[in-house]
Amino acid sequence: MNNTSSSTTNEVLATIMSHRSIRKFKNEELTPFQIETIVRAAQMASSSRFMQAYSIIGLTDPALKRELSEIAKTPYIEQNGHLFIFCADLKRLTVMGTEQEKQDMRMMLESSYLYQIAVIDTALAAQNAALAAESLGLGAVMMQSVNKDIRRLDQMLALPEYVVPLFGIAVGVPDQQPEVKPRLPLEAVYSENRYPSESDMREQIEAYDDGMRHYYQTRSENNRDACWSRSHIDLLKMQLPVGSMTEYLHDKGVNRS
Amino acid sequence: MNNTSSSTTNEVLATIMSHRSIRKFKNEELTPFQIETIVRAAQMASSSRFMQAYSIIGLTDPALKRELSEIAKTPYIEQNGHLFIFCADLKRLTVMGTEQEKQDMRMMLESSYLYQIAVIDTALAAQNAALAAESLGLGAVMMQSVNKDIRRLDQMLALPEYVVPLFGIAVGVPDQQPEVKPRLPLEAVYSENRYPSESDMREQIEAYDDGMRHYYQTRSENNRDACWSRSHIDLLKMQLPVGSMTEYLHDKGVNRS
Repeated sequence: MNNTSSSTTNEVLATIMSHRSIRKFKNEELTPFQIETIVRAAQMASSSRFMQAYSIIGLTDPALKRELSEIAKTPYIEQNGHLFIFCADLKRLTVMGTEQEKQDMRMMLESSYLYQIAVIDTALAAQNAALAAESLGLGAVMMQSVNKDIRRLDQMLALPEYVVPLFGIAVGVPDQQPEVKPRLPLEAVYSENRYPSESDMREQIEAYDDGMRHYYQTRSENNRDACWSRSHIDLLKMQLPVGSMTEYLHDKGVNRS
Repeated sequence: MNNTSSSTTNEVLATIMSHRSIRKFKNEELTPFQIETIVRAAQMASSSRFMQAYSIIGLTDPALKRELSEIAKTPYIEQNGHLFIFCADLKRLTVMGTEQEKQDMRMMLESSYLYQIAVIDTALAAQNAALAAESLGLGAVMMQSVNKDIRRLDQMLALPEYVVPLFGIAVGVPDQQPEVKPRLPLEAVYSENRYPSESDMREQIEAYDDGMRHYYQTRSENNRDACWSRSHIDLLKMQLPVGSMTEYLHDKGVNRS
């Protein structure tokens, strides 16, 4: 469980290894310089075939932020220094094409193959953005919850075909200092040449669950009796209506075939 | 086009802003310490609901690396300091469940909703890994091309249900020093409160295309006459057989509904 003890030999590793999600921010807006730095950092991530298949939208309109926060029951969607919405974007690739070319591109644009590439591009950029923010002394949290009512968010942002919001990142001056959360044992995540055996995996998860139970019971805020594997099994058994996401993706022209 | 001039006020930003993909490595293997540092850095990325829904497999078997390199016609799949394969992994979440629970989880595991979360988790971790490598003075390149024959790679790594290889990262001591590649104008990627208008987008892409034509003509290696938007339109018009990816995902039990 002692993941954070790996030697942090430089400032980059020190920033990466001390990451924790910040969910409470001081009432201070980001400066234009901070916003620009974060976006330019995002842009420097690798991109498959250099497609740069993402868009970032800063949601600054207080009424829209409030509405989104109320839909998601997530106060830090409203209360933060800046809210970035990261969207997978295959639309930009088509803009300079003729009408005929737009038709001809449709088959590939609608494929799960290309949508997956856009999702990966977007997340790579987002992780750079989060680290850039943290390097500036800011805190950040990534949130799926901005998508609680994904069609409403789509409408708010006037997203065209082939553009899909994936998650938000709230950034700001931290007003809390939570502990770093212990990660899975390295051996549960990394193996050489082949996927680990089921029995090895069970053993590692059991050890992790023990450690996480202790972490959840003793951490400074939001204590509870929980362990990692059980909480996920209980969640996944709930059969939530996640199909609405699939329908939305189809309506946006992506992940269709 | 002058994206890289944004002030790099700390080592994290300096590392992020000087990223370039390295495709030629010296014949030096990574040390166990370097490999561990990279994996632990990957693990510290944010993860949706803390699912940690990814696995990383180091491909070290020379015969397998050679085979994969030949399939993909990508020499740096074989010639590098270390090859990491990043996989979306929803399997680990199920391991501690009973047989009945595994059945009950199936609906959510098969959803595009959950698969998308796993893809995002994997890419967030991967970007941390790449930056950690770069911070150690190593170079890296992310590659979809390890998936050229995705079923063969799946078989090589003995990947179970719900585990899907997304891309590789080759890491090593750089044996080339390519230029930093100019990114899209910030305004083409970032907007506030709503997606940019089509006419604004066209204007920004035109300016970028001009700059990129110059970049491709004058860069130190692999010169060519190309521009950003046209090369992607031509690629996407090709109607490549990308549906085989969709079938593979369905066979793995993900992105089904």
